[in-house]
Amino acid sequence: MEVPKYIGIIGAGECSEPIYGLAREVGLEIGKRGWALVCGGLGGVMEASARGCTEAGGITIGILPGLEKASANVYIRLPLPTGLGEGRNLLVVRAAEVLISIAGGFGTLSEIALALKMNKPVIGLETWPDIPGIRYVSDCREAMQWVSKLV
Amino acid sequence: MEVPKYIGIIGAGECSEPIYGLAREVGLEIGKRGWALVCGGLGGVMEASARGCTEAGGITIGILPGLEKASANVYIRLPLPTGLGEGRNLLVVRAAEVLISIAGGFGTLSEIALALKMNKPVIGLETWPDIPGIRYVSDCREAMQWVSKLV
Amino acid sequence: MEVPKYIGIIGAGECSEPIYGLAREVGLEIGKRGWALVCGGLGGVMEASARGCTEAGGITIGILPGLEKASANVYIRLPLPTGLGEGRNLLVVRAAEVLISIAGGFGTLSEIALALKMNKPVIGLETWPDIPGIRYVSDCREAMQWVSKLV
Amino acid sequence: MEVPKYIGIIGAGECSEPIYGLAREVGLEIGKRGWALVCGGLGGVMEASARGCTEAGGITIGILPGLEKASANVYIRLPLPTGLGEGRNLLVVRAAEVLISIAGGFGTLSEIALALKMNKPVIGLETWPDIPGIRYVSDCREAMQWVSKLV
Repeated sequence: MEVPKYIGIIGAGECSEPIYGLAREVGLEIGKRGWALVCGGLGGVMEASARGCTEAGGITIGILPGLEKASANVYIRLPLPTGLGEGRNLLVVRAAEVLISIAGGFGTLSEIALALKMNKPVIGLETWPDIPGIRYVSDCREAMQWVSKLV
Repeated sequence: MEVPKYIGIIGAGECSEPIYGLAREVGLEIGKRGWALVCGGLGGVMEASARGCTEAGGITIGILPGLEKASANVYIRLPLPTGLGEGRNLLVVRAAEVLISIAGGFGTLSEIALALKMNKPVIGLETWPDIPGIRYVSDCREAMQWVSKLV
Repeated sequence: MEVPKYIGIIGAGECSEPIYGLAREVGLEIGKRGWALVCGGLGGVMEASARGCTEAGGITIGILPGLEKASANVYIRLPLPTGLGEGRNLLVVRAAEVLISIAGGFGTLSEIALALKMNKPVIGLETWPDIPGIRYVSDCREAMQWVSKLV
Repeated sequence: MEVPKYIGIIGAGECSEPIYGLAREVGLEIGKRGWALVCGGLGGVMEASARGCTEAGGITIGILPGLEKASANVYIRLPLPTGLGEGRNLLVVRAAEVLISIAGGFGTLSEIALALKMNKPVIGLETWPDIPGIRYVSDCREAMQWVSKLV
């Protein structure tokens, strides 16, 4: 049974249109490469990236804060309700081999920090600045080059 | 995006050959119906049921106690390492719509109890006896009849 | 710094008057011996035992399912809000050296099972019957004899 | 039963001598005011602050990543083993009314972010810079003024 690589996408539940477009592009590239996308399952960056991944025929896993599968965005193929609230952030990080942080608020910052604490690579796209350990990139193409090296 | 129903299979990490056969048969029927199988991802009943589900082309999700995807049995398509130890039992229960308990030890008993506490249906096959709330059945066919009604 | 032994009391959030009296008596004996009482922090058996322990001057820790300290019963000196729902049951078990199960429903059964899975001793007072591994006793005095041997 | 206010101290498990001194001073002031100190229970800033709090006769609660009470530093009066690894960071944040961040690494940053996500006040002493939402202060006295206003 071939297990796909998991790429974690972290970012806020609401985002601007340009960030939505960027996240969708990242998701698309993940799906094209046969990797699975893991995220928090809600809106904004999570929705956009899951949408792109789905459009490329990829698998999307949404690790949800609440207890209802229906709270996932419509591009999540496999929603996992946890009931842990923000505690699900840790599970996104523990599941992923590599994380890509796109923009994001405090929830995203907690995931960046947890990932770096566990020595998991974090690639940053227009995200929290000046955090030592993040590999900052300027576009989707460069992000994919890093992910390809890392997985 | 069509989200599959999740059937949780709970049972011990080691089991007798007849129980292995029974769990495999249950997994096969789950896979045939297009449901996803959720379990704890390790050996015994978890392996047997994932094996059956995979043989029928179904999706298998393994919610693991440890931090390594590689600790999953080879029939798990989507392993989720949690690092929560027995805490992952709760996540199996929260993810599943219906649970089928096959034989099992104390870990299984904890999952039965958590599921009944949350008012999730639990179907019992040669499992912990005399627990009010479990729908005890005598074979795989009868278990599937119940699951079909419930999902 | 002397760390007290933790005795976990598990039992339902609602109970009959005789069970309330029994749990209060058990709590009183725990407090007298200088042990700390750990429980789920809500009503019924949890309240009664915390009340007894407090009356004897003992420390009571309530590991709560919700996010509000104020949801603890009034005999809890140190409420710990977790926001994990039933996930807090695992934390009660992991904290305690020995558990005493008094009556109880499915939540209690999950705690019994988790404790036995981790090889922690469980003493049973008018609780779930016929579970191998529970040391069933008939009164508070006998329960205390066992706890004294075990801690 | 009077429940104390909980002040969460977050900071790394190893620290310089000046930071150790600062954390100890903060802990001392917490203990003097009758507040309880909640932290992750290990070394460095956690140990220093617990030490100070204990010296003032205060209560110290250590929410531990592992399963052993004995892994707590010697100034923790009430160690709580969770077995959740970094997952215990969330519990420190959920327990505390106010958090004081002293220096710190990625674990601390995850706690800062989780706290701000939950709208809990975070006071910063020589800690991660430039995070909107943190109330940066320059010494223990100023930190205590803020805490006094907030609890």
